[in-house]
Amino acid sequence: MSTAWKSRYALRTKDLKTSTIRELLKITQRPEVISFAGGLPAPDVFPVERFQEACHRVLQSHGHQALQYGATEGYEPLREMIARHIARYGIKAQAENVLITAGSQQALDLIGKLFINPGDRVLVEAPTYLGALQAFSVYGAEYVNVESDRDGLRTDLLEERLRSGPKFMYVLPNFQNPGGTTLSEGRRHQLVLLADKYGIPIIEDDPYGQLRYEGAHLPPLVVIDRENLRRDEGYSIGNVIYLSTFSKTLAPGLRLGWIVAPPDVILKLVHLKQGADLHTSTFTQAVAYEVARDNFLDEHVKRIRKVYRERRDVMLESLQKYFPPEVTWTHPQGGLFLWVTLPEGMDSNKLFPTALHENVAFVPGNCFYARNGFEDEGSRHMRLNFSYVQPEQIREGIQHLAAAIRQQRLEIQAVHS
Amino acid sequence: MSTAWKSRYALRTKDLKTSTIRELLKITQRPEVISFAGGLPAPDVFPVERFQEACHRVLQSHGHQALQYGATEGYEPLREMIARHIARYGIKAQAENVLITAGSQQALDLIGKLFINPGDRVLVEAPTYLGALQAFSVYGAEYVNVESDRDGLRTDLLEERLRSGPKFMYVLPNFQNPGGTTLSEGRRHQLVLLADKYGIPIIEDDPYGQLRYEGAHLPPLVVIDRENLRRDEGYSIGNVIYLSTFSKTLAPGLRLGWIVAPPDVILKLVHLKQGADLHTSTFTQAVAYEVARDNFLDEHVKRIRKVYRERRDVMLESLQKYFPPEVTWTHPQGGLFLWVTLPEGMDSNKLFPTALHENVAFVPGNCFYARNGFEDEGSRHMRLNFSYVQPEQIREGIQHLAAAIRQQRLEIQAVHS
Repeated sequence: MSTAWKSRYALRTKDLKTSTIRELLKITQRPEVISFAGGLPAPDVFPVERFQEACHRVLQSHGHQALQYGATEGYEPLREMIARHIARYGIKAQAENVLITAGSQQALDLIGKLFINPGDRVLVEAPTYLGALQAFSVYGAEYVNVESDRDGLRTDLLEERLRSGPKFMYVLPNFQNPGGTTLSEGRRHQLVLLADKYGIPIIEDDPYGQLRYEGAHLPPLVVIDRENLRRDEGYSIGNVIYLSTFSKTLAPGLRLGWIVAPPDVILKLVHLKQGADLHTSTFTQAVAYEVARDNFLDEHVKRIRKVYRERRDVMLESLQKYFPPEVTWTHPQGGLFLWVTLPEGMDSNKLFPTALHENVAFVPGNCFYARNGFEDEGSRHMRLNFSYVQPEQIREGIQHLAAAIRQQRLEIQAVHS
Repeated sequence: MSTAWKSRYALRTKDLKTSTIRELLKITQRPEVISFAGGLPAPDVFPVERFQEACHRVLQSHGHQALQYGATEGYEPLREMIARHIARYGIKAQAENVLITAGSQQALDLIGKLFINPGDRVLVEAPTYLGALQAFSVYGAEYVNVESDRDGLRTDLLEERLRSGPKFMYVLPNFQNPGGTTLSEGRRHQLVLLADKYGIPIIEDDPYGQLRYEGAHLPPLVVIDRENLRRDEGYSIGNVIYLSTFSKTLAPGLRLGWIVAPPDVILKLVHLKQGADLHTSTFTQAVAYEVARDNFLDEHVKRIRKVYRERRDVMLESLQKYFPPEVTWTHPQGGLFLWVTLPEGMDSNKLFPTALHENVAFVPGNCFYARNGFEDEGSRHMRLNFSYVQPEQIREGIQHLAAAIRQQRLEIQAVHS
């Protein structure tokens, strides 16, 4: 019946297959499953009462404006608040440098649309954020992978890879998704210097930067770029476009993220966004502003840090206690995820159904690798989320997962003996 | 400073210029200007109190869910409500046929992304909705224009144009933007039959369908397609993808629209939407459902019809009273716009600054024509919106606009004498 459409799909959609992770996540929504698979904030930290007050105030004081069409750039008070907020981390931006997007995901889509011609290479960490690969691939991106270790992207490999002329680098320096690693300060400087040397700009994606549970805050790439290279006068965004979001600090259901970029890039992005959705909901923007204002967001982030730090610690303890000694994992200083490496010979894709049978779920590692030779790289890895599940359930889930690992090892040994 | 970026823009952005309409609309936001330029609903019809109650109920009863990530397809109760709602117009759809989008604009963007390869032709009405041209052009669309008259798209010209093999047709049958015309029932049947004969599918964009102020409701193309061509069994969406929105009936600030399509097309669109923004705000979807439920939306639409019908009538009367007799205009049976044709020799682009000097604004006609030989087609036309401005201001604005027209005529006569 729909053949008229089927034969008409554009070439860019040819690799669009049913996403494994999408299908996985559906299964993991069964209530009996303890899911370490998603990247969901804990719903119990959502400031629901504050939202009640904010909605009331917005609708009462300027409801007609909040329900009307708005500027593509975003709600001015919110853009100003974001500019003030990031200034504390040394990012010298004005409201004109800030574009409000429908979550960070739209920021990635607009960046793909603005920069990627079919066949263009994007340099990414291996592993990297799945949603970025999805956003860039539809515009025909190819990938240059750079391996990571416990200190993040291996900058010792970078120079060689930059010679292949990627259009830009896409990097998550803080508590990376999925690795849970943080790019060390030394490597941040190396990265910025090499980017400058080869003239390759950087997309710095920082959804979790505020969720640090230990250690000192490290300077964002966008700040190092300005300070090192003495880019200044007025606004200070040069070689680095910076992305962040309210999804992990306020609520993902708002779909509010932002791009910080030079004004000429913002102008182009605004035109693309106009064609993509006219603008982000004026109502959610006004509500987010009203929720965040008067220092509420800062206080709230402190509370989230406390809750997530405890969950991370419970997960690390449980891994130590229940997992076989040959399994290793990263120690995230913040964020939502850690990255597990299974012993050689094990395959996280095969482990998945066994784990699900034990009512526990994770995301197999190979979802997080770009094509281009790295597809199978992830099969010994899995990503575990520690923000969504309550501490007592974390303990239980890790026990179940340990049981699934032991079971798979026995099966492998049986095959080999 | 941002040269690293400038040299890296993708080819698809090369025609991305500062949109005339965007710049115009900025000027028309001056408070002393009576603006017939935008396509804004009257803010005084927004049901602010109902929104207050809805926000309260959503946050109280399932706030944690409404603030969390959600399914890409959309909020299930809202999808079901939309399916029930459109069934009354004969569109037999299930929730699985409905994808919630960030306004109709995102629907157009996703459709462009799914179907258009660079160089593909899209058949459009001349004039047509500017936002559709923006959305499709970024994917490299070329256009096949079909002229319109007072009964909408001229189906007598259609067969010849279909032979050029457009990928799909994009049509606004009800109270077209910008023309204000409605496609007659006879032409709807012709259009559907020709689409079937040439195997060219149809995108039916229907943002204003419910806002009819006179005459009987006409069957949507999607219904004629099913009934004429006996497409049936189960769901009934075949050759026509149907789009609509809450922007004109509830509030545009929510950014909520939807696509009705066969399940395999919905699945592809879901994948593209996942990469574009993950999903539309769960919060605005839950609030819209709560506002619309229990028949509120139907009652509210009746109220809007009454307000807009009055404004349309005041504008038609004022045009009759104040405009020179050589100027003509369409008589819209619904929607938000009417389309004015100036006498030969006049140019709406040149009229614009004169009008603005008189503190009245409109959109010059050539914004609504696709490239491909039709660029200058619109210079004798202008689009007037009658939904946003209060009746007494409509009278005043039309008087000012008439003065501007007379002034420009005098100037033209002075040049020619």
